[in-house]
Amino acid sequence: MSMSRCLIARAEVQTFIERCMLSVGTKPSHARSLAEVLVEGDRRGHYSHGLNRMDVYVKDIRTGICAKEGEPVVERETVATGLVEGNNLLGPVVGNFCMNLALRKARDVGIGWVVARGSNHYGIAAYYAMQALKENMIGMSYTNTSPLVVPTRAKECTLGTNPISVAAPAANGDSFVLDMATSAVAFGKVELHDRNGNTIPEGWGCDSQGKLSTDPSKVLRGGGLVPIGGCEITGGYKGFGLGLMVEVFCGMLAGSQYSRYIRTWRVTDRAANLGQCFVAINPENFSPGFNDRMSDLLSIHRDLEPTDPEMPVVAPGDPERIHMEKCHSLGGIPYHLSVVNHMNDFAKSIGVTTLLPVDKVIR
Amino acid sequence: MSMSRCLIARAEVQTFIERCMLSVGTKPSHARSLAEVLVEGDRRGHYSHGLNRMDVYVKDIRTGICAKEGEPVVERETVATGLVEGNNLLGPVVGNFCMNLALRKARDVGIGWVVARGSNHYGIAAYYAMQALKENMIGMSYTNTSPLVVPTRAKECTLGTNPISVAAPAANGDSFVLDMATSAVAFGKVELHDRNGNTIPEGWGCDSQGKLSTDPSKVLRGGGLVPIGGCEITGGYKGFGLGLMVEVFCGMLAGSQYSRYIRTWRVTDRAANLGQCFVAINPENFSPGFNDRMSDLLSIHRDLEPTDPEMPVVAPGDPERIHMEKCHSLGGIPYHLSVVNHMNDFAKSIGVTTLLPVDKVIR
Repeated sequence: MSMSRCLIARAEVQTFIERCMLSVGTKPSHARSLAEVLVEGDRRGHYSHGLNRMDVYVKDIRTGICAKEGEPVVERETVATGLVEGNNLLGPVVGNFCMNLALRKARDVGIGWVVARGSNHYGIAAYYAMQALKENMIGMSYTNTSPLVVPTRAKECTLGTNPISVAAPAANGDSFVLDMATSAVAFGKVELHDRNGNTIPEGWGCDSQGKLSTDPSKVLRGGGLVPIGGCEITGGYKGFGLGLMVEVFCGMLAGSQYSRYIRTWRVTDRAANLGQCFVAINPENFSPGFNDRMSDLLSIHRDLEPTDPEMPVVAPGDPERIHMEKCHSLGGIPYHLSVVNHMNDFAKSIGVTTLLPVDKVIR
Repeated sequence: MSMSRCLIARAEVQTFIERCMLSVGTKPSHARSLAEVLVEGDRRGHYSHGLNRMDVYVKDIRTGICAKEGEPVVERETVATGLVEGNNLLGPVVGNFCMNLALRKARDVGIGWVVARGSNHYGIAAYYAMQALKENMIGMSYTNTSPLVVPTRAKECTLGTNPISVAAPAANGDSFVLDMATSAVAFGKVELHDRNGNTIPEGWGCDSQGKLSTDPSKVLRGGGLVPIGGCEITGGYKGFGLGLMVEVFCGMLAGSQYSRYIRTWRVTDRAANLGQCFVAINPENFSPGFNDRMSDLLSIHRDLEPTDPEMPVVAPGDPERIHMEKCHSLGGIPYHLSVVNHMNDFAKSIGVTTLLPVDKVIR
């Protein structure tokens, strides 16, 4: 019997990541924060931002590229804004600190806009934006990232996939959760097509001459992703503009690294010093009835007659919700066996107890 | 001699729009505000949001669909947020009021986030965002608009072109000015192709069945624009998500009309009650050196080697700056003669002195 995936209980993934991180001396609260963000990435179906990346964080702590001691510090603030020095701590440590600060300010004066420098890769952007939902607020999160995107008309990568996440609460626990890279697609999607020997759709990436290419190897080697919108005629300059907007909120306000100065993707020879931005807005300071309007806006769209009856119209956050429900009904998070084996080999290499799969075969 | 375009002095366009608006009883300060935004639209090369639309505003005042008396009112506020009742006044009157309020708050506490309901079409979104540049601040402006965009997987228009504008100051008066619809292209571009009998590129619009179409008449009659990103595989769901994000900032926070409840494009049988959002952020409350970093970010991109030597890489706001420089060197704003004739016929019909072209032939 060939089993390509296996099921692991959420709590087991959480504690596995924690014990790996603790084994290299990570502060327990920091290990917990990181594990929570990675587990949430997997539970939402964004496996590229979950357990799959755990070894990178362990190595960053072990080599000292990322700091294991200390806490973020507020450098300057008003009742509504904050600038935070992340002290090169793990991204989720900086992110949680900033988002909590933004929420506190939003409770007081309706909005909190907090920017961090000295941060690191923080997992899925939506994790931080969604913290606001617990307090019935709008949350936003932005980060700059290593250059992978080629601007419209150019041939060189100068911008990261610079994600935008906005979460807004509807009635009865429902919500809108936008979480999108400002590139047309994720780098991982191009890699997957390359590994499988498939071509990619036109409008995902370009070659080293800046021409759109359907050959994933040209995009990965010398070329780059293109901004949302694809080429200039279909509006790629808008995606380019959005990528720059994220830099305005992050690198520009934070005084961190930005654009082409950010270290190369997967090269961790120096501290990342990323810039990140966290926002909370309290709808109670605006027009009454926010949650009901949000529910109506979501219903308007979910109830639209679809072009293809098999493909219903979904609101931002719905695909992730479907994946979470699947994990819930399965009683765990399904992982490709190759990821589990890789992580277990890694765990053994650092003397950590391996993952315990749920005793259940899944297809 | 056939002259397709003619040149009109900026001040003449300004006073022409003012006298047309005054002739139907518009408050002088409101007429001035409207004229300023429309002239700026033309000067920046966005002719679809300038003089070209003046007759619509005159009719809105004349028929009483838009209010000519009163001022916007702050309904609730904190030191950092505001909710404004626009009292169905002209969009630029509401927009200026809100942006000034946001700037005042940003001077005090680093940020001002102001939302308006009861507003009307406000011209180019960038006009308001750019007010922040005068005070060396970041400005943002968002508005919902009449449904013209078909969500990913759907066949019906439920969202407007819902623009996003973000302006940020660089050193020496330079700036970043993003001003983009969240649709792949503007409605006017599809109309232009239709009038000229040309097909449109794939990824601009869809037919009544929600399928991408290169036939502009299908897009205009029964179909609609598609979100930035085009179809689902090239990331159209991201543009759809951004259109909804604009609704969160506008209709949801404001309690105005939203989504499919907004009156149909070009039908002005009832008050628009648009929702709009205006933000100012003071970089002085964040990391020192903002302007220099912005200049560097702009230079990095403007100096990139282009794919086509004839098409340099441009930053958001650069094409508009080039158009303004052209107007400056010409000594006026170039208009198609058909627009000038149409507006002059309209002026005569309401007993107003016509436009005075600059005595200079242009090609």
